[in-house]
Amino acid sequence: MAQWTIYGDSQSGNCYKIQLLCALLGLDYDWVEVDILAGDTRTDAFLAKNPNGKIPLLALQNGQTLSESNAIINYLAAGSALLPQNAFEQAKVQQWQFFEQYSHEPYIAVARFIAKYLGLPEERRAEYDAKQAGGNKALKVMEQQLSQTPFLVGEQLTTADISLFAYTHVADEGGFSLTHYPAIQKWLSLMRQQAGFVAMG
Amino acid sequence: MAQWTIYGDSQSGNCYKIQLLCALLGLDYDWVEVDILAGDTRTDAFLAKNPNGKIPLLALQNGQTLSESNAIINYLAAGSALLPQNAFEQAKVQQWQFFEQYSHEPYIAVARFIAKYLGLPEERRAEYDAKQAGGNKALKVMEQQLSQTPFLVGEQLTTADISLFAYTHVADEGGFSLTHYPAIQKWLSLMRQQAGFVAMG
Ligand SMILES: N[C@@H](CCC(=O)N[C@@H](CS)C(=O)NCC(=O)O)C(=O)O
Ligand SMILES: N[C@@H](CCC(=O)N[C@@H](CS)C(=O)NCC(=O)O)C(=O)O
Repeated sequence: MAQWTIYGDSQSGNCYKIQLLCALLGLDYDWVEVDILAGDTRTDAFLAKNPNGKIPLLALQNGQTLSESNAIINYLAAGSALLPQNAFEQAKVQQWQFFEQYSHEPYIAVARFIAKYLGLPEERRAEYDAKQAGGNKALKVMEQQLSQTPFLVGEQLTTADISLFAYTHVADEGGFSLTHYPAIQKWLSLMRQQAGFVAMG
Repeated sequence: MAQWTIYGDSQSGNCYKIQLLCALLGLDYDWVEVDILAGDTRTDAFLAKNPNGKIPLLALQNGQTLSESNAIINYLAAGSALLPQNAFEQAKVQQWQFFEQYSHEPYIAVARFIAKYLGLPEERRAEYDAKQAGGNKALKVMEQQLSQTPFLVGEQLTTADISLFAYTHVADEGGFSLTHYPAIQKWLSLMRQQAGFVAMG
């Protein structure tokens, strides 16, 4: 039994953040595949672990659990080169991660979900269309930073890059073309070149 | 000139997080009132400070800027009693803050905005109604924790409590009755009893 157990869905970007982080750091974990559509996150046993009923979820050997993808990767990265030592840079990592959860994921991941998993049904077309402006706004904010520095917080790869890579690299599946974002494209390939990198899925 | 300048709107819960944190810690700052509806966050000067065009925003004396309310309060609280020393507890602080941005604020703050600022116009009634279930789900998750521990991360007040206090204490303005959440009510009054506490507005 590994030190950590991760409950997740291999197709979910939020869960992939943890797989990617562990791959880059060479961390070992047990993986429990969770099927949301089959109701696995609605059972009493799962809700006892995460009352918010969401994956990913990290369980420690002592039974303690931690939810929220970005909190999990920061916890697992503590003391590694993926978290800066400098207090202001640490704050910048968090800035990008809160940006991801508030201004990026709710547009790009949700548009992708509607298109890829639901097959863009007519009744969700308006919602899908409405997500496009917000998603492109988030991509523009990233593009501006990445045309100044190779990674989001500067010269070094941090957990902020992992958080934003998760859904940006599949943004096309949500209808977002990256053609107009050359700095993002360059950053995506830089991410794929990192030692230990694993693809999603 | 104080060490920090905060750009914010006194009526915004996200901005209030910073005022409350600074009051509890006795930190001095300069405040620049920003009027979103008048376009203050859309000027070139503001977008140069925060390309995402949002407040609150923290500016340091050296010109560096930090956005995202929760990243700002964690930065300002570094080294204080409001951030635990223990790595797992630090992760729990972040867990609650990401929960706030993803599962709480988008329901409770948005319902409040539609009701209080827009006067619940007919064309946003369906959206307002749709926010109620998500907001109550978030309150239930908080209630469950707060019926076990006085604060969200345990025995001690942390920045997670500040993040969640901001919109929970005005949830009624978004149509959420706290009658069914006794542990939340108790926590709200515990928050108001903290030395240095300031009200919003
Ligand atoms: N803010 C959360 C979002 C997690 C999330 O939305 N997870 C989805 C799968 S990608 C889920 O569990 N959905 C089931 C549900 O909400 O009922 C995080 O970053 O971990
Ligand atoms: N995730 C951000 C949200 C900030 C936010 O939504 N700010 C609002 C005021 S409460 C704003 O600036 N809105 C203007 C806009 O989005 O154009 C945070 O926590 O700081």
